[in-house]
Amino acid sequence: MMEEIRKLYEKFGGEVKEFEKFEGEVDVGYKIEFEKKIEDVDVHFFGLASGDLNPIHFDEEVASKTKFKGRVVHGMLTTSLVSAAVARMPGIVVLLEACFKYTKPVRIGDTVKVVGEVVEKEKNRYKLDVKCFVGENVVAEGYAKVLLW
Amino acid sequence: MMEEIRKLYEKFGGEVKEFEKFEGEVDVGYKIEFEKKIEDVDVHFFGLASGDLNPIHFDEEVASKTKFKGRVVHGMLTTSLVSAAVARMPGIVVLLEACFKYTKPVRIGDTVKVVGEVVEKEKNRYKLDVKCFVGENVVAEGYAKVLLW
Repeated sequence: MMEEIRKLYEKFGGEVKEFEKFEGEVDVGYKIEFEKKIEDVDVHFFGLASGDLNPIHFDEEVASKTKFKGRVVHGMLTTSLVSAAVARMPGIVVLLEACFKYTKPVRIGDTVKVVGEVVEKEKNRYKLDVKCFVGENVVAEGYAKVLLW
Repeated sequence: MMEEIRKLYEKFGGEVKEFEKFEGEVDVGYKIEFEKKIEDVDVHFFGLASGDLNPIHFDEEVASKTKFKGRVVHGMLTTSLVSAAVARMPGIVVLLEACFKYTKPVRIGDTVKVVGEVVEKEKNRYKLDVKCFVGENVVAEGYAKVLLW
């Protein structure tokens, strides 16, 4: 299944991010960073998987009539990159909580950079403050809580 | 692009949720409900779009050695259904904030039901308390804030 889906994904310009773990020992101050370019194929894949086929993400004519003046990327697709970022932390990572404000619209073709820092640690549970950037702009910000085995 | 991706999605058993709007006038007490079965193809699509190709979602051998004893669905894929649910509210819906705790693992083949209720309204901004269920179990809970044009 993955081979066939991946082939179609890459055919439409999707950026496959091979999975790899970050190094180091996790404690307060530990930083993570992850970036990915969001293409139209990502919006399609996310729309089908989530069930969110809202035309503002797919139909330029509909989207151009909104205050966004054109298609925007699903907010939750943008913050889904945080899932990819924390998954790369050492150990088996379980996402416990994710909380984000969406501060600026993201467009197809934008590269989203996730920047996180561990700010709290309680045994093997960690809270990270997280910001998602497109260029200099913060497009989403909040926190994620994870458990590392 | 959508036609070809959709064809592959359905070939692998994906459940396409056609977009439609909920009825009624939104005020405190307004309820929303949306459900979708999460299939392996959804995990693949979400994994590629988000960049989260963590083996606990894809590799049964790796996943079986964790406390989950088998593959689990990405937490953020589960709550991405909240995006689909709120998008169906009347008007042009902008997601402002989404905040969720992940309380139970979700498995491939589970049907996730999103249940939300508007608990606060300030002009055209609304806060909804949201729970995601698999059967009787709450698998994620929190809130979403939206702006409706």
